[in-house]
Amino acid sequence: MLTPGKNSVTPDWMPVPAEVRMHTDRFSLDSSFAVSIEGAATDRLSRACVRLMRRVSDRTGLFFQRESATGALPLSAPGMTVAAQREGRVSLGEDESYSLEISAQGIRLSAVTDIGCLRGMETLFQLLDADADPEGSGYGFPCLTVRDKPRFPWRGLLIDVSRHFMPADVILRNLDGMAAVKLNVLHWHLSDDQGFRVETRSFPKLHGLGSDGFYYSQEEIRGIIAYAADRGIRVVPEFDMPGHVTSWLAGYPELTHRPGPFRIERRWGVWSSAMDPTRKSTYRFLERFIAEMTGLFPDEYFHIGGDEVEGKPWMEDPDIRAYMKKHGLPDAAALQTHFTLRVQKILASHDRKMIGWDEILTPGLQSGAVIQSWRGRESLVEAVSRGMSAILSNGYYIDLVQPAAFHYSNDPLTPDMNLSEAEAANVLGGEATMWAELVTPETVDSRIWPRTAAIAERLWSPADIRDPEDMHRRLRSVSLMLEQAGLTHIRNRGVMMRRLAAGTDTGPLEILLSAVEPVKNYRRHSMRPFTTFSPLTCVADASVPDAEKARRFNTLVESLLSGAGGSSEAEPVRRQLILWRDNHEAMLPLIRRSPILAEIESLSEDLSRAAEIGLQALDFRASGRTPESVWTNEVRTRLESMAEPRAEVELVILDAIRKLASQQ
Amino acid sequence: MLTPGKNSVTPDWMPVPAEVRMHTDRFSLDSSFAVSIEGAATDRLSRACVRLMRRVSDRTGLFFQRESATGALPLSAPGMTVAAQREGRVSLGEDESYSLEISAQGIRLSAVTDIGCLRGMETLFQLLDADADPEGSGYGFPCLTVRDKPRFPWRGLLIDVSRHFMPADVILRNLDGMAAVKLNVLHWHLSDDQGFRVETRSFPKLHGLGSDGFYYSQEEIRGIIAYAADRGIRVVPEFDMPGHVTSWLAGYPELTHRPGPFRIERRWGVWSSAMDPTRKSTYRFLERFIAEMTGLFPDEYFHIGGDEVEGKPWMEDPDIRAYMKKHGLPDAAALQTHFTLRVQKILASHDRKMIGWDEILTPGLQSGAVIQSWRGRESLVEAVSRGMSAILSNGYYIDLVQPAAFHYSNDPLTPDMNLSEAEAANVLGGEATMWAELVTPETVDSRIWPRTAAIAERLWSPADIRDPEDMHRRLRSVSLMLEQAGLTHIRNRGVMMRRLAAGTDTGPLEILLSAVEPVKNYRRHSMRPFTTFSPLTCVADASVPDAEKARRFNTLVESLLSGAGGSSEAEPVRRQLILWRDNHEAMLPLIRRSPILAEIESLSEDLSRAAEIGLQALDFRASGRTPESVWTNEVRTRLESMAEPRAEVELVILDAIRKLASQQ
Repeated sequence: MLTPGKNSVTPDWMPVPAEVRMHTDRFSLDSSFAVSIEGAATDRLSRACVRLMRRVSDRTGLFFQRESATGALPLSAPGMTVAAQREGRVSLGEDESYSLEISAQGIRLSAVTDIGCLRGMETLFQLLDADADPEGSGYGFPCLTVRDKPRFPWRGLLIDVSRHFMPADVILRNLDGMAAVKLNVLHWHLSDDQGFRVETRSFPKLHGLGSDGFYYSQEEIRGIIAYAADRGIRVVPEFDMPGHVTSWLAGYPELTHRPGPFRIERRWGVWSSAMDPTRKSTYRFLERFIAEMTGLFPDEYFHIGGDEVEGKPWMEDPDIRAYMKKHGLPDAAALQTHFTLRVQKILASHDRKMIGWDEILTPGLQSGAVIQSWRGRESLVEAVSRGMSAILSNGYYIDLVQPAAFHYSNDPLTPDMNLSEAEAANVLGGEATMWAELVTPETVDSRIWPRTAAIAERLWSPADIRDPEDMHRRLRSVSLMLEQAGLTHIRNRGVMMRRLAAGTDTGPLEILLSAVEPVKNYRRHSMRPFTTFSPLTCVADASVPDAEKARRFNTLVESLLSGAGGSSEAEPVRRQLILWRDNHEAMLPLIRRSPILAEIESLSEDLSRAAEIGLQALDFRASGRTPESVWTNEVRTRLESMAEPRAEVELVILDAIRKLASQQ
Repeated sequence: MLTPGKNSVTPDWMPVPAEVRMHTDRFSLDSSFAVSIEGAATDRLSRACVRLMRRVSDRTGLFFQRESATGALPLSAPGMTVAAQREGRVSLGEDESYSLEISAQGIRLSAVTDIGCLRGMETLFQLLDADADPEGSGYGFPCLTVRDKPRFPWRGLLIDVSRHFMPADVILRNLDGMAAVKLNVLHWHLSDDQGFRVETRSFPKLHGLGSDGFYYSQEEIRGIIAYAADRGIRVVPEFDMPGHVTSWLAGYPELTHRPGPFRIERRWGVWSSAMDPTRKSTYRFLERFIAEMTGLFPDEYFHIGGDEVEGKPWMEDPDIRAYMKKHGLPDAAALQTHFTLRVQKILASHDRKMIGWDEILTPGLQSGAVIQSWRGRESLVEAVSRGMSAILSNGYYIDLVQPAAFHYSNDPLTPDMNLSEAEAANVLGGEATMWAELVTPETVDSRIWPRTAAIAERLWSPADIRDPEDMHRRLRSVSLMLEQAGLTHIRNRGVMMRRLAAGTDTGPLEILLSAVEPVKNYRRHSMRPFTTFSPLTCVADASVPDAEKARRFNTLVESLLSGAGGSSEAEPVRRQLILWRDNHEAMLPLIRRSPILAEIESLSEDLSRAAEIGLQALDFRASGRTPESVWTNEVRTRLESMAEPRAEVELVILDAIRKLASQQ
């Protein structure tokens, strides 16, 4: 697919376009640059052109003579023409394809829809670079031809705003990030046990008693939906039911069969509160609620959650058991299906299609629903084999702080799934899921980005674009581009380090954190009693997955041991190890001054000791001597003991040092 | 006033309280810490207690067992009691005094109003520090007694949202910053030639045609006012009239006598558009407009601007001249007074007092208005001598990027003003003014903070708290505290540097910028043709006033030359000079890679050369030789030529190097 021309370096873009031909020349930018719109001059397209010029101006410092796109290009200067055949609908399956042609004389971006043009503008912006030509502004674009379209039509990011509320500006900046990497669905997880986040006029106690005052007004929601639509992004609301509803019960305890009163849940986990699916009043409530919410959220899909319902409390209730018997419902799963089908009917009466987590895929479920597979991809295969549609989230749980490469290798549609063409077409795509138990507005971007860009590429680009090393090379640039788009994943790390360092130099802390990552999966929860009001400002929160320096160190060690690069890696490996070895001495006064760091004192010492072992191993290697087995055995034991996480972070260079010490 | 006890180091607080007695003991924090409210348990106070616990938890990493303030302290643990006698009104002159008593056994904060308690909480939070005690959490507060109240009742920050629109989150985070340093008035400059920023239902073309779509909805405005009130901060709206109204005319050209059509102004400066003060329709418009706006903005004061009206266009209009003749108005100033008095009457009918810029203080102005002195303090003296009230902004123009010490030394009320007690009481305070021609949401915090904290201290603390060196020492901590409160003045600088460095190491750029500051006053405007759509992402925008390393270098050189510190300063001075001298070599490849930096190439070279001169001077000094006058003369000429600004920044260490070279 990627067919480089004479420009041998491929651009740092992400997602990689479907078809590319690089040419040799360049388009040079100067202050006369202008954009002209042909065809469907939609408001969305005009605004996108203004934003593009703003971004190019900000990056280059060029004082453009024009402030916005014009009807026709001035004859005097080469510029850019954007041409859409028609306005795009912000709905599933809309045409997002585009062609981009950059020549020395001008840029032409054309597409069926204005949304396709928006996708192409992001590609173009990623191509902006410095020119070797000393004449002119120094900025320009490489000449090339791109024909691009997405592999999957549903490319989403879930943001949970229930566990920790995320104010509107957090959502808006993440929409800009999504647009930059061509994601097209914001899955907004708006209610859960820990908070109900939407102003609801029909049932004002939902947000009134279920949110601690932290909710979106309907005006804010309309603004966010419009902002998303302006970027060709759908907004799919999720109201999780019949479980995960404690926050609803604070205001409306009659929704459940269990005795109240209820208050907003402050702890994490799965709670046994569930709606009573046997009462008529439950459906009357939902009918009115859904009527209001479908008036607010225009997307054709409506997410009803449906996950993690504990059947036991239902089964303990004699009235519910009697109802089940009467309706021939053998177990809790059947009762939930009964509920799901009733809700699906309500949704259908409001022209909405249902989407839910894979628990709703029970034998009784009828077609027409979209299944979101989170527990495994089996449900995805089952759903499409039963004629339903499905999206994949299993493997895209970015809250679990796994490496970008792990998510990148996770493909929603692989040959070993043995799907027919029709079944494969029902695999709509996937969604990264940002669950918010352990993030705040300060840290959330650092858990979403840049890793979600790798997932975005998996969902947009051809399946054979999958080299993790090349992905990591490009991700470094993309991460900076995302920061320029307004995201805080880099800048807020500095804020957190400065807080942790209590006004002193953050250098030693940065060196320490370059060798650690937060513990993965759900492990943090077992280490401290987190609640909704726990501080998330500690070392683990300032640490990020894919610690870049550690990753590079590990790669260098691999390469050194394989002998691939001669021994050119020995020197950078040694320099890095010396930095780590000497760091503990600098950390000690910092820890004394800032007691919040006390929890990493032994970890800091271990990093120093591990680095010392690495240096000894390098010395053995340099001298050609083989260490005695007593040494290697002792070293292995010591490294093992250092692997114990502390402060919910762990050293991620121990394996490389172990290999170095055993010279293999 | 400041009476340290045995704790010899005074805290890094700002503003310094009126009366302090330091004790020797400490209050130690642990996770059982709780806050209890006595007396008037207002919602504002409860929320402030929750925020305080959140901030302490974030700083210390302590997992508090309680999430919010309780009715009574648990017997088991020492904690904090907050006691207000009554709910405070968010209006001019409300009691903001408080007493704070910290002992090893507990903390007691008491005040007449809950707003006084809020002020005391900020003092308390600034006292949080690390404990030498290895037992316990390591955090606590020094024991002391504070009795505090403000010197002036009007302590404001003006934010101009017309020249560059500032979204709601910019305003909200600045309100948090204001609260942290006890400012109590947000002066919101909502309209000007370049934009009208309020949703107006009675005249929807004001925001509809006057804002490019960038305005606050009334719901947003109500939210911001409530957020401010929750922090004891008044919001004074300014709608500038009769001049500075081009954006109004885009929708309502009939407001002026001049022929339209009009469009939003894109350039900076003073424009000759003004309302026609002779038409009845103008006042009918204003009556309806003010009726709506006073319904939206509850503060008792309403700012009508009144500045920079050019009389000439009025005088050129025969109808206006006829009107003036008929009403005995001799000149444009009298005509403006005529207008002002009519508007004041409209305001009075809506229970609002008028405030305006010092141009409204003409001989015909009657009492009851507040004068905001910006052109000089003469108008302030005149206003109070005529029985009016006044606030000072002259000397607080933070958009002009002058040093914090300059603003800090600017006192609204000095003995040489020779005011009577009654007159002095009418000097209500002052306001820092953030005019927004050259700032964006990305940079605005860096122009407001931390310097505005020094102004806040001038307006709150006793007049004799005025040592600039001590202010600078404290300002370093306060700046970090303000960042933790959500401001972006530090973090966004990193963002801008990374953009400028185009993905490479920002180190050399940081070293260069450590020796430069943006050009001051209005000089930038003469250097480039700025408009509303110019990029503000260049070197000048990433530079800040009070460049910290340069300031320290200059102080060290002063001290070295005075001989005060022996010659202990020679070594750090040399180290800094070597860093600057060697930096140009590192800058060159960066400039090649990032053409936006080309404009500082010669400046970078000059820094290197200036540092080389400084090093030669140090060598002369070390060897005891006196340089020949040929050398000193040549050096003086060369340093003078380096003083030329480039890229709208200037080297701010040249004077110190000149002194070093001439050994005086």
